[in-house]
Amino acid sequence: MSYQHAYRESDFVLRHLIDFDALCVEHGFEGVDLELANTLIDEAARLGAEVLAPLNVVGDREGVGMDTHGVVEAPGFAAAYRQFAEGGWQSLMVDERHGGQGLPNVLNAAVSEIWHAANLSLALCPMLTEGAIDAIAEHGDEALCARYLPHLASGEWTGTMNLTEPDAGSDLAAIKARAVPDTDGQGYRISGQKIFITWGDHRMTDNIVHLVLARLPDAPPGVKGISLFVVPKHRPETPGQDNGVRCLSVEHKLGIHASPTCVMAFDDAWGELVGEPHQGLAYMFTMMNHERQVVGLQGLAITERAYQQARLYAMERLQGTRRDGSRVPIIAHPDVRRMLMTMKSGLEAMRALVLEAAAERDRACGAHDAEGRAHHLARLELYTPIVKGWITEFAQELTSLAIQVHGGMGFVEETGVAQHYRDARILTIYEGTTGIQALDLVSRKLLADEGAGLESLFVEMDETLAALGRAEDETLAVLIGPFAEALSRARQACGWVLREAGADRQLAGAVSVELLMLLGYLCGGWMHARSALAAFRLLADGEGERAFLEAKLVTARFYCEHLLARTQGALTSVLAGATSLMALDAEQF
Amino acid sequence: MSYQHAYRESDFVLRHLIDFDALCVEHGFEGVDLELANTLIDEAARLGAEVLAPLNVVGDREGVGMDTHGVVEAPGFAAAYRQFAEGGWQSLMVDERHGGQGLPNVLNAAVSEIWHAANLSLALCPMLTEGAIDAIAEHGDEALCARYLPHLASGEWTGTMNLTEPDAGSDLAAIKARAVPDTDGQGYRISGQKIFITWGDHRMTDNIVHLVLARLPDAPPGVKGISLFVVPKHRPETPGQDNGVRCLSVEHKLGIHASPTCVMAFDDAWGELVGEPHQGLAYMFTMMNHERQVVGLQGLAITERAYQQARLYAMERLQGTRRDGSRVPIIAHPDVRRMLMTMKSGLEAMRALVLEAAAERDRACGAHDAEGRAHHLARLELYTPIVKGWITEFAQELTSLAIQVHGGMGFVEETGVAQHYRDARILTIYEGTTGIQALDLVSRKLLADEGAGLESLFVEMDETLAALGRAEDETLAVLIGPFAEALSRARQACGWVLREAGADRQLAGAVSVELLMLLGYLCGGWMHARSALAAFRLLADGEGERAFLEAKLVTARFYCEHLLARTQGALTSVLAGATSLMALDAEQF
Repeated sequence: MSYQHAYRESDFVLRHLIDFDALCVEHGFEGVDLELANTLIDEAARLGAEVLAPLNVVGDREGVGMDTHGVVEAPGFAAAYRQFAEGGWQSLMVDERHGGQGLPNVLNAAVSEIWHAANLSLALCPMLTEGAIDAIAEHGDEALCARYLPHLASGEWTGTMNLTEPDAGSDLAAIKARAVPDTDGQGYRISGQKIFITWGDHRMTDNIVHLVLARLPDAPPGVKGISLFVVPKHRPETPGQDNGVRCLSVEHKLGIHASPTCVMAFDDAWGELVGEPHQGLAYMFTMMNHERQVVGLQGLAITERAYQQARLYAMERLQGTRRDGSRVPIIAHPDVRRMLMTMKSGLEAMRALVLEAAAERDRACGAHDAEGRAHHLARLELYTPIVKGWITEFAQELTSLAIQVHGGMGFVEETGVAQHYRDARILTIYEGTTGIQALDLVSRKLLADEGAGLESLFVEMDETLAALGRAEDETLAVLIGPFAEALSRARQACGWVLREAGADRQLAGAVSVELLMLLGYLCGGWMHARSALAAFRLLADGEGERAFLEAKLVTARFYCEHLLARTQGALTSVLAGATSLMALDAEQF
Repeated sequence: MSYQHAYRESDFVLRHLIDFDALCVEHGFEGVDLELANTLIDEAARLGAEVLAPLNVVGDREGVGMDTHGVVEAPGFAAAYRQFAEGGWQSLMVDERHGGQGLPNVLNAAVSEIWHAANLSLALCPMLTEGAIDAIAEHGDEALCARYLPHLASGEWTGTMNLTEPDAGSDLAAIKARAVPDTDGQGYRISGQKIFITWGDHRMTDNIVHLVLARLPDAPPGVKGISLFVVPKHRPETPGQDNGVRCLSVEHKLGIHASPTCVMAFDDAWGELVGEPHQGLAYMFTMMNHERQVVGLQGLAITERAYQQARLYAMERLQGTRRDGSRVPIIAHPDVRRMLMTMKSGLEAMRALVLEAAAERDRACGAHDAEGRAHHLARLELYTPIVKGWITEFAQELTSLAIQVHGGMGFVEETGVAQHYRDARILTIYEGTTGIQALDLVSRKLLADEGAGLESLFVEMDETLAALGRAEDETLAVLIGPFAEALSRARQACGWVLREAGADRQLAGAVSVELLMLLGYLCGGWMHARSALAAFRLLADGEGERAFLEAKLVTARFYCEHLLARTQGALTSVLAGATSLMALDAEQF
């Protein structure tokens, strides 16, 4: 199935919701504007549509192989990756002093939607490189940065993230990998086994830079004794020479078949410490928080691709006959409409939220004072579990609807839409499951600041509500009730958790996912309300494309009427608390 | 992964919710009682656990093949099927005059849960045979019955259902297959292509009996011109000889890899008319309505199997550490609990509803008067789209949760839990998509009798509510609020649709799936309320297994608090109607 980037959609969000040009001016991106952004997006869209997208089905069918030298990537992937690297796409948001282009994170996110929609398996590789760059740039010393970053930023080398071990998944405190100072005093020797290492091995580049969590000999137990190391496949000074890093096997998975998920063995492998000892987990979170946002973006991207396929099928497939004898495309049937509208309005909410969250990173980095920086950083951190948790959960439903629109053909693998459903299934798991996101949201975001960060977000939503009211227009007025009620439910749920969590230590965990989903739908509603306001103003001014802007008002209304309704059940479920949820003994299951 | 039938659960429903012994006495099943039923269930459970279940993963991995003689079934399947047939399992509910055992449908359903949980792909074969038996027995003349039914009831031959054609899926009016009277005046010659024919070919038995929809030369256009034919792979009088029935290819599917989904070519194939000409669609619905209930049962069965695997993993997988240094099984973590409770309480609602609906067939067939028969038939028909639609949709979510409980391991195919997720995905599609079920519910059930059938169901729910109140017990009192509110929402939604549907011809289709889901959750809540009442009485009488019965009260409470909450959003979505859903032009998507 072909894939085309939704240009108008990303342009609308960047232009009218983010105000990209103003962001660039205000936060120090000189010479960058929406025109440049759209030129880049255009170019990326071409590479995505022509090179990456056609390989998506090949990768799914052929998967990755193994021979005595390690992983063999799917056919065509090495050449496609080379085109990606040569296009300079890896370095878009990397700092100029590390060989990057220093462009805004939000622009990188808009471009990345294309990679992940076109070929999720392949896109995971640069995504992890980006994370590795982030972690080294933020926490490594100058020498470390100089040794690795230019090679990573150019795409000449790729990066990975080695956290999980067989006994340490969500519970990273249980990590057992060891690091000892090298006898020559230069660096460390790392040993241990890591699992679920995405793109842990391949032969698309000359070297692979592994970021590895391991314990030093004097490490305290638990999460406070974990350090972060850079362990290259080959030591930079001895290219091609074995460094004790090996892929033992690759997993046979439900989806993303062309992304090698490796069991990695580190056998006295030489590596370098990043930053201070025992700070590894905190450092890894720099990387992980960014990755989590990108996984949310993947949810958007794969939903967009599945939607495009479902939309095309719904327009072309004829079932049912009109009185004049002509046959009806199924898009005319109300239940097919319901599915497409759910996908379309869900997608628009996802995209706006992903880009809004991505822009917060630019706003934080480019803030003029500590207060501004703290505000935007807090907002960025608040969005992270919502973007990761809500969007990826929603993506499961929406990619499933894309199958459903196809009827029996959707279940046939050759149709191609089932691949998106299978691929999407990993998104609620890797980089922290939905449960982990929700716990992060409740404990580190809601409870940690006693709701202040969330309330500041709610206040901005109040302002949007007020603006909807001031417009005194029917197309906007219909949004007010559902959005205001959803907001009130969110306040009620958060307030209740803040009051009750102290007395019931199970409560936060028990209600966290429902609360996360409630806040996710609410944020989506906010995005739609803001989109509708922008569309309304443009229409009033006679600007822009009329049919497109009118559709924005319709999708906003559909979302508010049909999808915000889900916040009702979520609130009730939160308020029911942990009692019945925790009441059984394990033996009663 | 091993599978064990949930004995206590099916016994509880048959004993306390269905009152199986009373049903047998009242509706003419002489000599049948729960003791016999449980003996049969026991035996079936052994066959399921020891023979069918171990082949499930083999079938998934190996799939079906094709050679010049047609389909080659997955390894081991022929032998397993032989054991099934030799055990007499095919004929459980077949009338004794056709060589069957004449046992109640509800018992057959309880037994069938085992087949579908153990091996969905294999169980599809006898399920279709059962449907073919149903259609022939109900609509065929005596000669036809005598020629086919004994062979089908013994499992010596299998049956299929040939409806779909490339241009005729949900829209059966578009069927093009043709039948002409045979030149010798004996039977007909059928020609055409059918797709998505489950178990359309195999070599497990000597013959396959195809039920085929086709048009006679003088047929009126549309659905009123479709006739039903029996077309055997080999004519009974010339076994082994070609009859112009051929499998052209099998589909490569997302799931149920071991169930051959065939493209069938009928090339001047000899066949026999079932019943009257042009009545084929009505006849096929006899078969289909039963199959739809069985597909709902499949949703239950596959969820049970996925739940068993998730439960075991949650008990054995350790993540997190207690203060004393011991590690914590993840079942202790509240969010894992939430997922398991959702599965467990969902399962119990599903099972009770499936068996309750199945019992309605026995009550209808064994009714003493026309009024009783009409009442139970109407109830059976009302349940059908709910059982099919709601349970299979819910099964998607619950099998997905089973993956989620496994974290990263859930995405690895060798773990086995992903198979259930893939297999389950067909359930909302075949035998009529969820959209088709919902349209059937709204148009043929709700609108057709102006809500009378639903109201009679609601009145029974009122009685359960009253009984909950009379008990004056806290464990039951907590159910009243959520259940009463859900019931009131259902009345409100149905009343609104009844009032509004006349004025807006898009309305029924637009709101139907949300209404179906609302009614599904409500029916599930009713089952839980009745289970809780039964458990409460048994506990009060000091009968039964204490921990098991107490768990019933807890799952009922969890379901009412957390899952009935979903009816809120469903009602709001229904009341929003078709406006925003239908507002876009096709080009605006």
